[in-house]
Amino acid sequence: MKNKECEKKICVGYQGVEGAYSHLAIEEYFKGKEIEEHNFESFEDVLQGVSNGEIKYGILPIENSSTGGITEVYDLIRHYNCYIVGEKIIKVDHNLLVFPGTKIEDITEVYSHPQGFAQCREFFKMHPKMRLIPYYNTARGAKLISEEKKNYMGAVAGKQAAKRYNLEILAENINANKNNYTRFFIISKNLILNKKADKITMVVILKHEPGSLYELLGCFYRHKMNMENIESRPIEGKSWQYFFHIDVTGNLEDKNVKEALKNIEKFVSEYKVLGNYVGEKNKRG
Amino acid sequence: MKNKECEKKICVGYQGVEGAYSHLAIEEYFKGKEIEEHNFESFEDVLQGVSNGEIKYGILPIENSSTGGITEVYDLIRHYNCYIVGEKIIKVDHNLLVFPGTKIEDITEVYSHPQGFAQCREFFKMHPKMRLIPYYNTARGAKLISEEKKNYMGAVAGKQAAKRYNLEILAENINANKNNYTRFFIISKNLILNKKADKITMVVILKHEPGSLYELLGCFYRHKMNMENIESRPIEGKSWQYFFHIDVTGNLEDKNVKEALKNIEKFVSEYKVLGNYVGEKNKRG
Repeated sequence: MKNKECEKKICVGYQGVEGAYSHLAIEEYFKGKEIEEHNFESFEDVLQGVSNGEIKYGILPIENSSTGGITEVYDLIRHYNCYIVGEKIIKVDHNLLVFPGTKIEDITEVYSHPQGFAQCREFFKMHPKMRLIPYYNTARGAKLISEEKKNYMGAVAGKQAAKRYNLEILAENINANKNNYTRFFIISKNLILNKKADKITMVVILKHEPGSLYELLGCFYRHKMNMENIESRPIEGKSWQYFFHIDVTGNLEDKNVKEALKNIEKFVSEYKVLGNYVGEKNKRG
Repeated sequence: MKNKECEKKICVGYQGVEGAYSHLAIEEYFKGKEIEEHNFESFEDVLQGVSNGEIKYGILPIENSSTGGITEVYDLIRHYNCYIVGEKIIKVDHNLLVFPGTKIEDITEVYSHPQGFAQCREFFKMHPKMRLIPYYNTARGAKLISEEKKNYMGAVAGKQAAKRYNLEILAENINANKNNYTRFFIISKNLILNKKADKITMVVILKHEPGSLYELLGCFYRHKMNMENIESRPIEGKSWQYFFHIDVTGNLEDKNVKEALKNIEKFVSEYKVLGNYVGEKNKRG
């Protein structure tokens, strides 16, 4: 893909193959816009593509409502000096997909991402004959089934993957929690300021003093910025010290936010705003 | 394994096969004691074994200093109503293990747990011919190599696995971060009180009010309990609401701790002490 072509359409990248939840997130986020889709092998490849200008936006999962943070994505955003410019929430319903004609009692091998299995633990307890084989991601499991055409194989993936690879849905919505969502970040090379933005994601390294997280949160609280999420990630090479990734409400142009950011310098040794964007409030169970 | 036999020796369980880091953690934690080792397929099987009395203690990884929290373990501890009675930190050095005589240039398939690959990312960037195949855990990858005896296969695992499965170490300490540790919890069916215990792990559900995490941390701060770790986990069935797992210093018998626990009830809708144990302070880089 040449950058020249990228100038006309919006070039957007995701990890995985067609039919992946990330692919669905792209199609929903950019609905109605003319986009050029690129798919990549790994999360890191997506960030690299954003960083070197091959694609304008990358889309990466950051959190699942049942299994928690996909926190290595924060490491990559920091490492590649990229920014968060948007958020998209996708409902995740897993299904047991098979080559058409396969019977449920014949299935001995099921392919999926380990998180797919974790979310369908109860279903597989009822089917102990099925050996769960970890695979790159849910959609690649579905693609494998469509290529192998074996009547003892299955995959755990979304309905969009069944459609894309012409597979049969043998069991629908097998995830235990029917209220299962994945939150995606839209990533860009540059920080984008937007008057409508109401959510800020930042990364901080706290001062090594008792109570520094307490003081930091107090600062947001006094400035009426609600904390929506906090995740810790180890600092590489420094055992048991952490980066904190914090989502708070606010716009960087607001007076209270400017004051809060001035004040937090007392409690943190480093901080960086990773993005200020429109948070997706609906679809939240 | 009958419970009767378990009465004489201490029955201890871990996930994985011999040569796993969990196995090493058990041997170091119970050094000098007569133990009976049981190995299980999954983290959940270990917790089930503790819960139904098949084993007295289980050992499970809770955090790696490079890749972060293994936070699904918290879900299992809560689910099986078990308690944390000890902590053990193990240095993790990954190595490329092969069937004796294999040459590095012939290797096209490497088996390991995805976290093993993540920790050796830099090494594998220099060896793009090696396809990384996700496997159940590091030691099982090593076991596979010893069974398959193929000169194009390798595994990423610890030296204890090389020794156990008679494999050759073709590249030593290939993890990027040489300061790489895994922290393990020792789990029991009952809460054990110990006068020497200096660390408390608890789980809380915050009241749905602005500033409740801030107020909770303030309560610990005023009672001179240092926060050592905080991890969030989604509450199943309630999207974007979280359990917080918090490690603080203190002993449940201390006056300041008793007062703090009385006070936190204002800010949390639920809380439970998951354990009070001797924290391992040394070996912390």
